[in-house]
Amino acid sequence: MATVLIVYAHQSTGSFNAAVRDVAIKELSEQGYRVVVSDLYAMNFKANATKDDIIGDLKNPDLFQYGEETMHAWNEGRLSDDIVAEQRKVKEAELVIFQFPLYWFSVPAIMKGWMDRVLTQGFAFSLKNMYDNGVFKNKKAILSFTTGATESMFRPNGINGDINVALWPLQNGTLHFCGFQVLAPQIFWSPAHCRSVDRIVMLEQWCARLQGLMAEKALTFARCEWFGLSFEQGFLLRPEVKEEQESNAYGITTGHHLGKLLPPDNQTKVQAT
Amino acid sequence: MATVLIVYAHQSTGSFNAAVRDVAIKELSEQGYRVVVSDLYAMNFKANATKDDIIGDLKNPDLFQYGEETMHAWNEGRLSDDIVAEQRKVKEAELVIFQFPLYWFSVPAIMKGWMDRVLTQGFAFSLKNMYDNGVFKNKKAILSFTTGATESMFRPNGINGDINVALWPLQNGTLHFCGFQVLAPQIFWSPAHCRSVDRIVMLEQWCARLQGLMAEKALTFARCEWFGLSFEQGFLLRPEVKEEQESNAYGITTGHHLGKLLPPDNQTKVQAT
Repeated sequence: MATVLIVYAHQSTGSFNAAVRDVAIKELSEQGYRVVVSDLYAMNFKANATKDDIIGDLKNPDLFQYGEETMHAWNEGRLSDDIVAEQRKVKEAELVIFQFPLYWFSVPAIMKGWMDRVLTQGFAFSLKNMYDNGVFKNKKAILSFTTGATESMFRPNGINGDINVALWPLQNGTLHFCGFQVLAPQIFWSPAHCRSVDRIVMLEQWCARLQGLMAEKALTFARCEWFGLSFEQGFLLRPEVKEEQESNAYGITTGHHLGKLLPPDNQTKVQAT
Repeated sequence: MATVLIVYAHQSTGSFNAAVRDVAIKELSEQGYRVVVSDLYAMNFKANATKDDIIGDLKNPDLFQYGEETMHAWNEGRLSDDIVAEQRKVKEAELVIFQFPLYWFSVPAIMKGWMDRVLTQGFAFSLKNMYDNGVFKNKKAILSFTTGATESMFRPNGINGDINVALWPLQNGTLHFCGFQVLAPQIFWSPAHCRSVDRIVMLEQWCARLQGLMAEKALTFARCEWFGLSFEQGFLLRPEVKEEQESNAYGITTGHHLGKLLPPDNQTKVQAT
């Protein structure tokens, strides 16, 4: 059965984040999806990456390297039960929704812990399988979050700077790194400072978007094959691709700007074709 | 006594991160500083932002809003002991060094938890006191971190995109938001894949930098007074400042790019004057 996973991080059942989550559960269930929720605070999800994440002996107890050890443990079926349970949910899902309030331009620590611990090397990526060749290239992911700031504060000329820049580590560096097709983020601007009627409109718009979500095109990222994928080549853009890009006034993505103008709204809007 | 706080997040005493930390402790102690270390894994530091961070009754138990409740609790001296202890260390420090391995283009969850929980509204920022008017404007902060990736992978034409973009949420969105003067990051590129002799050179370079660290100029960020600091004005760049910037081919910072070219290395190198 087609499954959606909602990784959810809010402490309160009465929160707007909870209401957003519930709209998704209802709408996607009505579409016939099985919706699974990881309610991180309710689960008291462990955020810290420690030795306890590995069952049995460490390969190198004198120099514990979390990434190395968990890669081996994944290979040998020795990751802790809570990680294995989350990995199973990811495996079954064709869409993962991350639902959270923005904390310090990023996800709350409990959700960062989910990313640090669940997206194990081997399970979620390898040097051969990353970005558009990534392990999860047939899955979609979306950040759905609330902000304290207003929309104008996160413009390129707003006090906090461009939201597209802020989203890069999460959307490119984490989700797309693992291969996910990243859908445009669903941003609920400053719901705490809105009138309740405006919050209801926000929920209605989210519900409307969910009706077509699975058919949406994903955001644009650089393609792996454009880079020289070896340490000798430095994982740098190939000269022939650089040349092809020469006539473009804009860079490829927010992060792959090539010293040119940032493609506008690269991390928040689907590129027109 | 002049104090430096090192917020440290690595699980292993034998790690390169530990060696980097120890170089800082030794060198700064020799300079006469009192060096305080928060060894987050050793402390089993709680990363998750929960009700337990507040002593006594909640203002709104039906709708728990972490930011609001901790702001009140800070005001009334009702934050949990572990948070209060960290806040005291920050208050006493003139420099905070964040020492960590890069996890998913960002800090490990345990360190994100430190940021989420310790940098409480009121203690670390307010709508009136942020960025260069921030609470910690007389303090310095620096990110010192190791990567798995090589340096070329994090160039604007490298597979991971520009490191300056990746650092924006941490350096502007967190540290400078609270007022910290942010020193250029100390990046140890891929030490696990270096020869041991190269790692020794890295440590020597870090030691040499520490000798002049306190005299370094900070990175360049946009100034608060350049923005219309009210909801009516949208916290947007003032028209007269936009005009002043018109002749500049580059934006102000990585995030405040104003639709122009990114100022090169804005988040990694001190701007030439």
